[in-house]
Amino acid sequence: MSGREYIEEICINAEKASKVIAHLSTNDRNNLLKNIADKLLERTGEIVEENSKDLVAARAAGVTDAFYDRLLLTPERLEGMAQSIVEIASLDDPVGRIENLRVRPSGIRVGQMRVPIGVIAVIYESRPNVTTDIAALCLKSGNVAILRGGSESINSNSALHRVIREVLVEAGYPAAAVNLITDTDRELVSILLKMKQYIDVVIPRGGESLIKRVTEESTIPVIKHDKGVCHIFLDRSADEKMAIAIAINAKIQRPGVCNAMETLLIDKDFPHTVSVLNALLGAGVELRGCSRTVALLPDTIKEADEDDWYAEYLDLILSVKIVDSIEEAIEHIDRYGSGHSEAIITGDYSHAEKFLEAVDSSAVFVNASTRFHDGGEFGLGAEVGISTQKLHARGTMGIEGLTCLKFVVYGNGQVRS
Amino acid sequence: MSGREYIEEICINAEKASKVIAHLSTNDRNNLLKNIADKLLERTGEIVEENSKDLVAARAAGVTDAFYDRLLLTPERLEGMAQSIVEIASLDDPVGRIENLRVRPSGIRVGQMRVPIGVIAVIYESRPNVTTDIAALCLKSGNVAILRGGSESINSNSALHRVIREVLVEAGYPAAAVNLITDTDRELVSILLKMKQYIDVVIPRGGESLIKRVTEESTIPVIKHDKGVCHIFLDRSADEKMAIAIAINAKIQRPGVCNAMETLLIDKDFPHTVSVLNALLGAGVELRGCSRTVALLPDTIKEADEDDWYAEYLDLILSVKIVDSIEEAIEHIDRYGSGHSEAIITGDYSHAEKFLEAVDSSAVFVNASTRFHDGGEFGLGAEVGISTQKLHARGTMGIEGLTCLKFVVYGNGQVRS
Repeated sequence: MSGREYIEEICINAEKASKVIAHLSTNDRNNLLKNIADKLLERTGEIVEENSKDLVAARAAGVTDAFYDRLLLTPERLEGMAQSIVEIASLDDPVGRIENLRVRPSGIRVGQMRVPIGVIAVIYESRPNVTTDIAALCLKSGNVAILRGGSESINSNSALHRVIREVLVEAGYPAAAVNLITDTDRELVSILLKMKQYIDVVIPRGGESLIKRVTEESTIPVIKHDKGVCHIFLDRSADEKMAIAIAINAKIQRPGVCNAMETLLIDKDFPHTVSVLNALLGAGVELRGCSRTVALLPDTIKEADEDDWYAEYLDLILSVKIVDSIEEAIEHIDRYGSGHSEAIITGDYSHAEKFLEAVDSSAVFVNASTRFHDGGEFGLGAEVGISTQKLHARGTMGIEGLTCLKFVVYGNGQVRS
Repeated sequence: MSGREYIEEICINAEKASKVIAHLSTNDRNNLLKNIADKLLERTGEIVEENSKDLVAARAAGVTDAFYDRLLLTPERLEGMAQSIVEIASLDDPVGRIENLRVRPSGIRVGQMRVPIGVIAVIYESRPNVTTDIAALCLKSGNVAILRGGSESINSNSALHRVIREVLVEAGYPAAAVNLITDTDRELVSILLKMKQYIDVVIPRGGESLIKRVTEESTIPVIKHDKGVCHIFLDRSADEKMAIAIAINAKIQRPGVCNAMETLLIDKDFPHTVSVLNALLGAGVELRGCSRTVALLPDTIKEADEDDWYAEYLDLILSVKIVDSIEEAIEHIDRYGSGHSEAIITGDYSHAEKFLEAVDSSAVFVNASTRFHDGGEFGLGAEVGISTQKLHARGTMGIEGLTCLKFVVYGNGQVRS
């Protein structure tokens, strides 16, 4: 079978399965998830064994500790993954809900029904927990998933996928409701991205090169989950303690994630700049500053270059710029930011409103850490990821983002005049 | 200047202008629209004169009467266009509205603010009224428009665009808030479709070949406005009078539009099939039927071929198929439909619910004509068009479809634990 035939067969079966999965009852979908969670726990031994093959290969390939850690599955982590699936099952079901029902002058009643999107392809990094999370989010919302995880996690993903398929088949549903592309040839991704007659949306999660490739090659609508170059702006009126607490939290609580701060902007008239910078240095953060920042602490702060303003460090490194005004801060974010998450720390009402209105990012914060940008913290439950595009789903994307609205019209014989 | 430089200059200026237009007050945007409406009326003579150049060229090129009629501007039609702009100004402003505001356990308050998308490129047919409608809808929603109308309407569009620019400049706003691509070289469209660093969304309206080209070439998110192969299904329990009234209305009230019926499906046990077919024939509709339909009226109904089931006739032609059941009707729609608008005529509650749930189209009707699928009839006001894709905007797309939601978070010092 050629690569094209292999991918097309997966797509054809996925589309057929979507006609079944879209019409299951809420209870049927939730029971599926609970059974998957149970079976994951039962099969811990087998999954951990398959995962160890990936770990050995990754170590031999010389991956970073952070990469190795994301790949690692332990019995405790599998318990967490099963728990996450049970939590997804417990979310309110968006499917079938009718919104905005209204009577029109003609007498027709018009509403919008939330329905599954159909077939969702997700291309993601080598993190096996994403496999079960995305599969569960898609099934919960009545969608069929086509998963293509990082090649380094292929044995782990295959083991997880076997468990999911078994549960589907035991329940009498098509195994093709959750699909895994097990051939790791990268060319197959290019073929997948052209299958617009079967796939309704492609969600790429990962590095810049993947996002760029998918955006350029796909003829299927894309919801991209791009990098987070998140900014915090300390306004002149910011409270010193709050500024330090939020800056520290946003930078060091979990530096490797997309909602961590990467650039700190400080108003030139903020009186506690040195105190904030010292707090960050004291917490082990390497600072790269503009010339005015460097002048404040010349022995400890390196000069930033142009690349630093664009950088997503995902590490204990921070670029710092002193700006003349809130306007300059907004312009800097507009130029260098990735439209992910930005915060202002301020005591000034009009500056808070101005920042909220003017900053064109998926989440804009006043006096809170960017680290809150998360489906759980925002009250949406488990998330597919954080969308950095504007259409359909912007910011944290949960199960509602995996549905769309169709108009439903109830009449009793009306015709248009 | 090369074609690329020409397009890039438009895009750069459009993106700059979007930073101004997005932040105008509701009153400022509404006043702009009212001034455009006024000036269109003042300049009727000039616009009609420019339009006549397009009309002469079109007649010489041998266009159809329907094409000529869509191109034609008269003083009365200009009044209608100005009136439409005034109506768009009177719509509720979605921009800045905060939805779903809630307090989270951490103490942060999270909401979603409706904001303009940014820069919107629209590629459309040779209908000059679309130029002013789209410009008004974009300005109303705080967006910048890049317009590329059909080349046959270039003189009309240029005249309309001059009026819009003058109003913008007189009000002190950037002329680049509404842009028209006046170079009709088709290759420039390919260049435009790659300008993803400046343009946020591309909306193609028009024939299949345009939609296909845009979908395949664009690296910018697309909201497509594709053809409507709309179905009506007469269930076995349909009321005879209602079936005739709705079938006639959906087919002949305005056969050239995308929400007109193109295929009639009839349950084999519906007792009034011949009466419905005779009513359609009596109204001047040419019928193309399946073998069972032809057998009912062999002298007057031609046999349909496979292409007929896919056809968007936009004319007084209708394909007719007798089906064994509602399930077969749904399968037929799934296979041949374009996901636009479909209706069931029935007296059976469970069939009504089944059809509403199972048919995967942007609007699904019970006992009403598909002709109601329209922004005005649905209560959304003027429309950009009818989206036939599932993401972001599905079905009739009004000014809300030209906005997106960003999260806004109000804190008082919260950090994530």
